[in-house]
Amino acid sequence: MTQPRVLILMGSDSDAEVMRGAGSVLEEFGVTYEVHVASAHRSPERAMALAREAEGRGVAVVIAGAGGAAHLAGVLAAHTILPVIGVPVESKHLRGLDSLLSTVQMPPGVPVATVGIDAATNAGLLAVQILALSDKTLADKLREYRAGLARKVESASDRLREKW
Amino acid sequence: MTQPRVLILMGSDSDAEVMRGAGSVLEEFGVTYEVHVASAHRSPERAMALAREAEGRGVAVVIAGAGGAAHLAGVLAAHTILPVIGVPVESKHLRGLDSLLSTVQMPPGVPVATVGIDAATNAGLLAVQILALSDKTLADKLREYRAGLARKVESASDRLREKW
Amino acid sequence: MTQPRVLILMGSDSDAEVMRGAGSVLEEFGVTYEVHVASAHRSPERAMALAREAEGRGVAVVIAGAGGAAHLAGVLAAHTILPVIGVPVESKHLRGLDSLLSTVQMPPGVPVATVGIDAATNAGLLAVQILALSDKTLADKLREYRAGLARKVESASDRLREKW
Amino acid sequence: MTQPRVLILMGSDSDAEVMRGAGSVLEEFGVTYEVHVASAHRSPERAMALAREAEGRGVAVVIAGAGGAAHLAGVLAAHTILPVIGVPVESKHLRGLDSLLSTVQMPPGVPVATVGIDAATNAGLLAVQILALSDKTLADKLREYRAGLARKVESASDRLREKW
Amino acid sequence: MTQPRVLILMGSDSDAEVMRGAGSVLEEFGVTYEVHVASAHRSPERAMALAREAEGRGVAVVIAGAGGAAHLAGVLAAHTILPVIGVPVESKHLRGLDSLLSTVQMPPGVPVATVGIDAATNAGLLAVQILALSDKTLADKLREYRAGLARKVESASDRLREKW
Amino acid sequence: MTQPRVLILMGSDSDAEVMRGAGSVLEEFGVTYEVHVASAHRSPERAMALAREAEGRGVAVVIAGAGGAAHLAGVLAAHTILPVIGVPVESKHLRGLDSLLSTVQMPPGVPVATVGIDAATNAGLLAVQILALSDKTLADKLREYRAGLARKVESASDRLREKW
Amino acid sequence: MTQPRVLILMGSDSDAEVMRGAGSVLEEFGVTYEVHVASAHRSPERAMALAREAEGRGVAVVIAGAGGAAHLAGVLAAHTILPVIGVPVESKHLRGLDSLLSTVQMPPGVPVATVGIDAATNAGLLAVQILALSDKTLADKLREYRAGLARKVESASDRLREKW
Amino acid sequence: MTQPRVLILMGSDSDAEVMRGAGSVLEEFGVTYEVHVASAHRSPERAMALAREAEGRGVAVVIAGAGGAAHLAGVLAAHTILPVIGVPVESKHLRGLDSLLSTVQMPPGVPVATVGIDAATNAGLLAVQILALSDKTLADKLREYRAGLARKVESASDRLREKW
Repeated sequence: MTQPRVLILMGSDSDAEVMRGAGSVLEEFGVTYEVHVASAHRSPERAMALAREAEGRGVAVVIAGAGGAAHLAGVLAAHTILPVIGVPVESKHLRGLDSLLSTVQMPPGVPVATVGIDAATNAGLLAVQILALSDKTLADKLREYRAGLARKVESASDRLREKW
Repeated sequence: MTQPRVLILMGSDSDAEVMRGAGSVLEEFGVTYEVHVASAHRSPERAMALAREAEGRGVAVVIAGAGGAAHLAGVLAAHTILPVIGVPVESKHLRGLDSLLSTVQMPPGVPVATVGIDAATNAGLLAVQILALSDKTLADKLREYRAGLARKVESASDRLREKW
Repeated sequence: MTQPRVLILMGSDSDAEVMRGAGSVLEEFGVTYEVHVASAHRSPERAMALAREAEGRGVAVVIAGAGGAAHLAGVLAAHTILPVIGVPVESKHLRGLDSLLSTVQMPPGVPVATVGIDAATNAGLLAVQILALSDKTLADKLREYRAGLARKVESASDRLREKW
Repeated sequence: MTQPRVLILMGSDSDAEVMRGAGSVLEEFGVTYEVHVASAHRSPERAMALAREAEGRGVAVVIAGAGGAAHLAGVLAAHTILPVIGVPVESKHLRGLDSLLSTVQMPPGVPVATVGIDAATNAGLLAVQILALSDKTLADKLREYRAGLARKVESASDRLREKW
Repeated sequence: MTQPRVLILMGSDSDAEVMRGAGSVLEEFGVTYEVHVASAHRSPERAMALAREAEGRGVAVVIAGAGGAAHLAGVLAAHTILPVIGVPVESKHLRGLDSLLSTVQMPPGVPVATVGIDAATNAGLLAVQILALSDKTLADKLREYRAGLARKVESASDRLREKW
Repeated sequence: MTQPRVLILMGSDSDAEVMRGAGSVLEEFGVTYEVHVASAHRSPERAMALAREAEGRGVAVVIAGAGGAAHLAGVLAAHTILPVIGVPVESKHLRGLDSLLSTVQMPPGVPVATVGIDAATNAGLLAVQILALSDKTLADKLREYRAGLARKVESASDRLREKW
Repeated sequence: MTQPRVLILMGSDSDAEVMRGAGSVLEEFGVTYEVHVASAHRSPERAMALAREAEGRGVAVVIAGAGGAAHLAGVLAAHTILPVIGVPVESKHLRGLDSLLSTVQMPPGVPVATVGIDAATNAGLLAVQILALSDKTLADKLREYRAGLARKVESASDRLREKW
Repeated sequence: MTQPRVLILMGSDSDAEVMRGAGSVLEEFGVTYEVHVASAHRSPERAMALAREAEGRGVAVVIAGAGGAAHLAGVLAAHTILPVIGVPVESKHLRGLDSLLSTVQMPPGVPVATVGIDAATNAGLLAVQILALSDKTLADKLREYRAGLARKVESASDRLREKW
């Protein structure tokens, strides 16, 4: 089996729909990854084991999605020196403001690279950008991806102007 | 040495001034306790060990104070079935709103009994109220304490009216 | 009739669906309880009477759910030395932020053990954790419950990985 | 002794400096009033007694100031049919947002006439406006007060323009 | 035609469904009232004229509902010495937080008696409480209304306990 | 082709429904305009080119709508001395609060004239008000538009009162 | 006396220090202006008169600064078709969030061009940008001003790098 | 001169005190870096040039600090495929909430790795963690740094317990 370069963890399987975005980006860029449900509160041992073993297994980046009092990314970051990207998943009541603050406001010493609420796609892209630092092919794909974004905006603009 | 009934943990020694309030209440009620600095992110092993060993050491209630992405109470709660009282300590930038949401919005299965921002005194009182369920002397002291609160309000009212 | 160990109060019968979560947990753990609608504002006498009489009736923990300017938990706490667990019920307009702040920001002297917005299940669990301090059977059940949570997360992870 | 027409209550003597504003306005308009410290949580009996007896003593309006989980105005309103004006007093951590929401978001059936954070002066004026409905002299004074406000703004404008 | 004792104004006819609550309460208590749409921004002359003429027409209380940058209650209050009750109507994007702050945070000198978001029923009740100060029949009806509220809570409690 | 006087840009074609409001107002007032999709992040060159060339093409006002970390208006404002009107478009999670703060809180030196969340109609009107400073016909139309607003409020009031 | 092109109004002379920023910019660009204190609530007649007469006096842009329930800009906008720039002045308790929402969330039909909290300097610049549309000299000065901003950033960068 | 591996940009020299934290960490880990002031709004050309040239100059990570409508990190991210770490710098009025939302809520396609408000130290550490992926010495230093954090917490705990 291929060694995963990225580990995608989520606090609950109800986060799967959002976190799918990270997986899709990694697949699009041909980056291997592994996905797990692991809760900082309900299965803390498992979450920590995954974090501790990641480096030894060749993982380079950890992506963690959780909502509410979203401790997952921070708890993983406490157990690995790999960069941990946090995805604050929208919570039911406070629309992800609690998830965002719980993920981003880490104390000095243990950062979490936080992306926007539900922004798993961007978490995947950030992982690719980090991997691309030592992978010229990925860097070229990223440049192409960015050019594609600009082209899509232009097409959208053209379509909009036609039907306006 | 006396066995502690309450464990007071704080994420940083900068929380000591706030958390002192919990200690003072416990001393006033004659409840034994132990205090530690232990960070969910910078010294996670130590924090978890303290949580896991608490029950065996005769501890009945854990009080945890932390600020910002305040994961300490939640992480402790994940490693013990003792009731964990969370004190959201005021953060510099968001005035404790981040601390409060990170502490209180726990997922189903692992509650944290959250008190107000910087309300360590109330955390201490809540611990006493819990201990008083099986300690008649504590219950009597609590009733006297409450009566004292009412008397203090009345005195304050009298003084205010005199000098108004 | 069995003496209730827990009292579940709610400010309005529209809170029943949320507060059902507390009842279900207590039933799952075999803890006796009693449920009432009692408003801090529309039926204050009744609410206070329930709080004042609770201790004498053998109640150990009071759970109170209310929304908006959620005064119920605080008002009950003012009339009993039993631990009062507050459930901030989601309000229509401010998504429970008002309920949360009204419940948790209690003044020194009268704490409310606050759980997350709509987190009645956790309120029930917190009551069980408190009762388990003097009930070895409950403590064992709690440990089993926690182990079950971890197993459920693991199963969810396995299912997710299969269908991913 | 003169019968008070307005009752000014505050949850703590630390609210006195803010609530002084209500007293000053009432004195300026020659409206009799009485001031008390009475806490919804620390001296609930006293607070309720003051609310229940107010109508019989000839009081027409109740002004209540409190901060944090500010239940005082709501609890008083639950025990009297007199109009209750709530002053959300600034709290240390959340700058009075908690006080405001706890005071204003009352459930259907028991309103609190809420003024701005720390706006005790406006609470006094609102009481005067209510009393003026059946007191022609007060109404005339209010009209003069308003004219005075406009003149003061004009003077301030002139002074500003001179030194600009 | 009967002289109105209360004036109900709203900033837009889209506020009618909410503001209907104030009308229903006034009808239930037999208080005459008049309803208008009048915008502080789109028909300011009309809004101010209604405010200025109110006192002369025998109106005692003005109720004003508006959303977003909700200036209506404040603008009316600037043109009359009658008590003005503000109803912050829920806005589409910020759920009424903007409406609430725009209504309640009035400057010294010109208060608005603010009720909760969309709480037009409570605005009506507050108007009745003010009118009841000089109308014994209304006061008796209010006492009966409050007793009815308590009875309804008790019935709701009984029904809930039966089907629980 | 007619030279556009107003440039309407939006960060994504998903903003089109909201931004249509600006176009409709400009059409109603007979003001020429041009519409484009251009993202500050995905097609920054295009966005900047449009801003830089606007003045030379005879454009007088730029309207920019974007959501989330809404940088579009600010980025355009950095590349033109024409007045830039920012429309914070509602974001999915934080209801446009992020869009609003990202648009309005510009640093000293580069202002954005910000209207309310999703208030593209008002952005269009503001553009017309600016153009009307040197166009007497537009100014007359604006006066008529305002009179029409007042009449509509009056009609709405009449209809409401009839069916109330 | 020179005819003012810009009218600077503020709700209270305590706003003068902030609003001075708008005056300084206008002076720097040689734009004539007039300054007044005028409150939407305490001197509404004066505020409206200033708004209504502005156009006839040759004023092109109105700048209005106010805090709290900041109605001034909106009220002025309701009485003139000139563009009105709103400056939300920091309020004591809510740090200007109330001022911002009260100023920017205007209803359809009557926009206020809102700048950042306390951003009077930017209000002045926005006024200059509007006036520059029909004044080539002002446009040239603005371009020079912008170039100066860039130079200042570069100098600051150089100084920082030297002493870093 | 040594080629910089990290680029630290800040929107204003007033951010220098905060951003110094990133420089100190990089120095502690022996990572070369370069610091510039460059504003997304006042010197956009310079900011973009720095971003565009970074990759070619051997830079691996960009750190950007800005406050208020903090567009700097997002604008840089739009012009490079290098990972960009955003530091939301505390703003005067909204305590950095605006800075945080403007930095983190990026649209799909262009992520910013956001750390906490004023958390420049963590931005530096995150950069080191990313560089350590291909630098064994850095990885070892990071492990030692983390061990040092744990030891410091333990010492702080010991000191606290002695003087408690």
